Amino acid sequence: DSDVAKWMESAAYILQKHPVPALEEKIEEVISLIEKNQCEDGYFNIYHMVVEPENRFRIRDHHELYCLGHLIEAAVAYYEATGRDRLINILDRYIDLVIRVFTVERSAGFVTPGHEEIELALIKLYRLRKDRKYLDLAMFFLDERGKKEENDIGWCRSSYNQSHLPVRQQKTAEGHSVRACYLYSAMADAAKETGDAELLEACKALFDDIAGRKMYITGGVGSSNKGEAFTIAYDLPNDTAYAETCASIALAMFADRMKEIDIDGKYADVVEREMYNGVIAGLSLDGRSFFYENPLEINLSDHHRHTSVNDFDRLPITQRVEVFDCSCCPPNVTRFIASIGGSAYSFTENTIFIHQFFASKAEFDGIRVEVETGYPVNGKVKIRISGGNGRKLAVRIPGWCRKKCISKPFAEQKGYAYIVVDSDSFEVEADFEMSVEFYASHPSVRANSGKVAVGCGPIIYCAEAVDNGKDIHDIAVDTESRAEVAFDEHIGVNVITLCGFRSHDRCENRLFYPADQTEEAPVKLKLIPYYAYANRGETDMTVWLKKH
Amino acid sequence: DSDVAKWMESAAYILQKHPVPALEEKIEEVISLIEKNQCEDGYFNIYHMVVEPENRFRIRDHHELYCLGHLIEAAVAYYEATGRDRLINILDRYIDLVIRVFTVERSAGFVTPGHEEIELALIKLYRLRKDRKYLDLAMFFLDERGKKEENDIGWCRSSYNQSHLPVRQQKTAEGHSVRACYLYSAMADAAKETGDAELLEACKALFDDIAGRKMYITGGVGSSNKGEAFTIAYDLPNDTAYAETCASIALAMFADRMKEIDIDGKYADVVEREMYNGVIAGLSLDGRSFFYENPLEINLSDHHRHTSVNDFDRLPITQRVEVFDCSCCPPNVTRFIASIGGSAYSFTENTIFIHQFFASKAEFDGIRVEVETGYPVNGKVKIRISGGNGRKLAVRIPGWCRKKCISKPFAEQKGYAYIVVDSDSFEVEADFEMSVEFYASHPSVRANSGKVAVGCGPIIYCAEAVDNGKDIHDIAVDTESRAEVAFDEHIGVNVITLCGFRSHDRCENRLFYPADQTEEAPVKLKLIPYYAYANRGETDMTVWLKKH
Repeated sequence: DSDVAKWMESAAYILQKHPVPALEEKIEEVISLIEKNQCEDGYFNIYHMVVEPENRFRIRDHHELYCLGHLIEAAVAYYEATGRDRLINILDRYIDLVIRVFTVERSAGFVTPGHEEIELALIKLYRLRKDRKYLDLAMFFLDERGKKEENDIGWCRSSYNQSHLPVRQQKTAEGHSVRACYLYSAMADAAKETGDAELLEACKALFDDIAGRKMYITGGVGSSNKGEAFTIAYDLPNDTAYAETCASIALAMFADRMKEIDIDGKYADVVEREMYNGVIAGLSLDGRSFFYENPLEINLSDHHRHTSVNDFDRLPITQRVEVFDCSCCPPNVTRFIASIGGSAYSFTENTIFIHQFFASKAEFDGIRVEVETGYPVNGKVKIRISGGNGRKLAVRIPGWCRKKCISKPFAEQKGYAYIVVDSDSFEVEADFEMSVEFYASHPSVRANSGKVAVGCGPIIYCAEAVDNGKDIHDIAVDTESRAEVAFDEHIGVNVITLCGFRSHDRCENRLFYPADQTEEAPVKLKLIPYYAYANRGETDMTVWLKKH
Repeated sequence: DSDVAKWMESAAYILQKHPVPALEEKIEEVISLIEKNQCEDGYFNIYHMVVEPENRFRIRDHHELYCLGHLIEAAVAYYEATGRDRLINILDRYIDLVIRVFTVERSAGFVTPGHEEIELALIKLYRLRKDRKYLDLAMFFLDERGKKEENDIGWCRSSYNQSHLPVRQQKTAEGHSVRACYLYSAMADAAKETGDAELLEACKALFDDIAGRKMYITGGVGSSNKGEAFTIAYDLPNDTAYAETCASIALAMFADRMKEIDIDGKYADVVEREMYNGVIAGLSLDGRSFFYENPLEINLSDHHRHTSVNDFDRLPITQRVEVFDCSCCPPNVTRFIASIGGSAYSFTENTIFIHQFFASKAEFDGIRVEVETGYPVNGKVKIRISGGNGRKLAVRIPGWCRKKCISKPFAEQKGYAYIVVDSDSFEVEADFEMSVEFYASHPSVRANSGKVAVGCGPIIYCAEAVDNGKDIHDIAVDTESRAEVAFDEHIGVNVITLCGFRSHDRCENRLFYPADQTEEAPVKLKLIPYYAYANRGETDMTVWLKKH
């Protein structure tokens, strides 16, 4: 159900931009099917209606409310595209059933769902319809989660689904990373709607725990395939990185909501990091296949370590595939891309915020904003504002940017350049210099010790063996060397050329030898954007390279 | 049965050196028990006699012949200590049964045993008794292994137990590392006894594959806990290293046999590497507890990565324990240590070989050899030979040695210094300079890329967090710095003091930051012998350190 819902939501975002009658027809058809098959009492879940009708609302991990959440998100997006509320009304009957079963009768087999999603969806619907019952139900699920009572009816309190603690006491990101970030997104929404300071503080702590201790440089989160979960601070293994595509999307959702309740460029920085790295790496360049997991290092030999036994340490797949058993990521990428425009701007009483740089137009309260930009190929941004005289313009200064030039006077605060809009036909140009940058990791990140990652603007690069020969772990980057960025016609992306070193053959095939007999030979390196890896067949890959 | 047998064998080695009536009595008692309980037809295996009498010789992996092998080794050692052959005679009846069931009737449920051991034991017994039937049975098990026919009776040909290929075609070390090296040991013995050139070539290739591509610098072999097995060339992960103590012992056994059929110092080098590193690391300094596995890196945090799930990647234990479910290693260490003296010397027609340096005496064919040495604390070796006038003395030049001084003229060949013994009261002094050495790995060893290990003489050192603070992966060794070696009274071993560097706190707790903002602070490092790690409570440890 959720895959269909995410498809509808994606289609609705497309319809919001321009009409596509075939898409609209298809959505109407799906809505009719839902309408026709909805139970008398409002319930709708294909799996449970067909396979396990006796287990309705009995099994916490059966994703019934998760599916309802996605249907709600689709319904809201479709309403916003077309003004048609048939799906909302269908779901409203279902929501009334949920309210009755969970909050009045309390007759369900669990208190809060095993996979969060409905919470943020209900707040979306609340914002559209202003009907308090939606917010109340969302708050019910938030408030009950992790209470001792959840345990009492036989469901283990587990950090896997963030029920180890009441949400306001959660200060470190734990458990299944998609579930976690969907929950945190709802918490941020709830903090905004209710002004709950405790919730806001929890959200801030959770975000800082993720972005400061548990996030790959690509934006990937959930370091382990066991439980698809967050692990401990600074535990960022590259080769076994799970970093599910959905988790990157979920973190972008959380970060994008945080920017609404705490003005700081670090949130939009994370959205940008996901957008150009963690999320789109999940999609092949031809748009036809997907990664569920997004490792930062592939060593094909590791997949062949065990010659005599079949159960080996879980390693991520090395090529994108068209279909997954659990197909949550592909439609999530679709709706992410179709809706990312919504992250570009926000408007407060007095301030026009530009968080992301797209060649785009926006209008709010009589103010028209137009952005021209070569982003992310270059950092030049031209902004035109009409009808905004007297307001402030806040332009995000990307976290990766070390040199910038803004054509008007500005005051810098927490990652934004504040500029006074002093005419009704205002123009300002910003240039965020995109040069090749080398990144080191916090010393506690063991996997990256002595290594650097290479970025250019918001895009993180990687080395593939197909370009750089075998044993890419042996390459040491010369961080003093002149790096060149150029478009590669064959791959269709910008590539970085760099100088580096490799071990010379002096070791004469000895397994161990005196270190003073090590010799190096200079080599040229070719790096491609991380998002473009694994598009030319199976090959070793690494984001982190030894620093020379 | 094998644990008792290994205990008897160890006790017999002690009795070979000096009488201990209590030990001898205990052995006699055990032999009487075996005699009393042996089956009518000669069979003896406690497990099968008590639990599964109907499955005698039906289940390849039930270690019946393995246990018999260990009993034979014990019987031979006991005979050599006491001249008493009661146990040999008991086992001779069992061997006759094995010959009948396996080679005449071919009525067993398998052709060759799942865990090799009996092959080398039979050759030992053959060498003692000169009865061809023992060698024939050993050759039967060697020749049948990996033949297609093994498959036909339903036993999968598997590299796990080296039955993937006929033994003469095996050129790379595969499968369970203890089984493998026990097999290779028997192959080397068989090559010596039969002059089989194909077997010899296979042994050489197998040894070079191990020592040149699949051995840790500590001598550990079997990189993976899955199947306790060899994996692929250069696959030497440090943190998940399995490197079973028994595998180090088995490799030492194989190497020690190779020196008898191919004169090259590389074999005794491996024996020495095991002796001072891989094997004795399996034993605590107080002699009371044991490691089954011997990792080269411990990161305690990895043991706590998964907060919400129980099944995590298999990591070695971090502290030695007194008892294992499968207790093969402790009695194997005992017999290794009790018998290692046998590896020091060998005598060929014309040459007296000194392979290992112990303060010791040996006699052969009227020649008396006496060695005084401070080895392995220093490399001074004083050798006195009486009655050897006209012979050659071959003194091994340790592979780690870069500067040596020998007081007589010598010719160097394949790791040995050949010296003419020109008097009946001959003396020569050798000094193998033991300085602190830094070792690099072959560039294909990903785990050690950019890293060095530190050794002094035959002993490999490691850094523990208890001495060097947290995040030991962050330490970079200054290989140009002056290293000091000094005795540490508290630990009771020599320690190395070195200069190195650590990341400075300049990164201000940022997860990723521009590499040119990295700053380092000099630190003093304290390294202890690898064999002495994990004797002061749980603490992080690493053998391989970043090279500055």
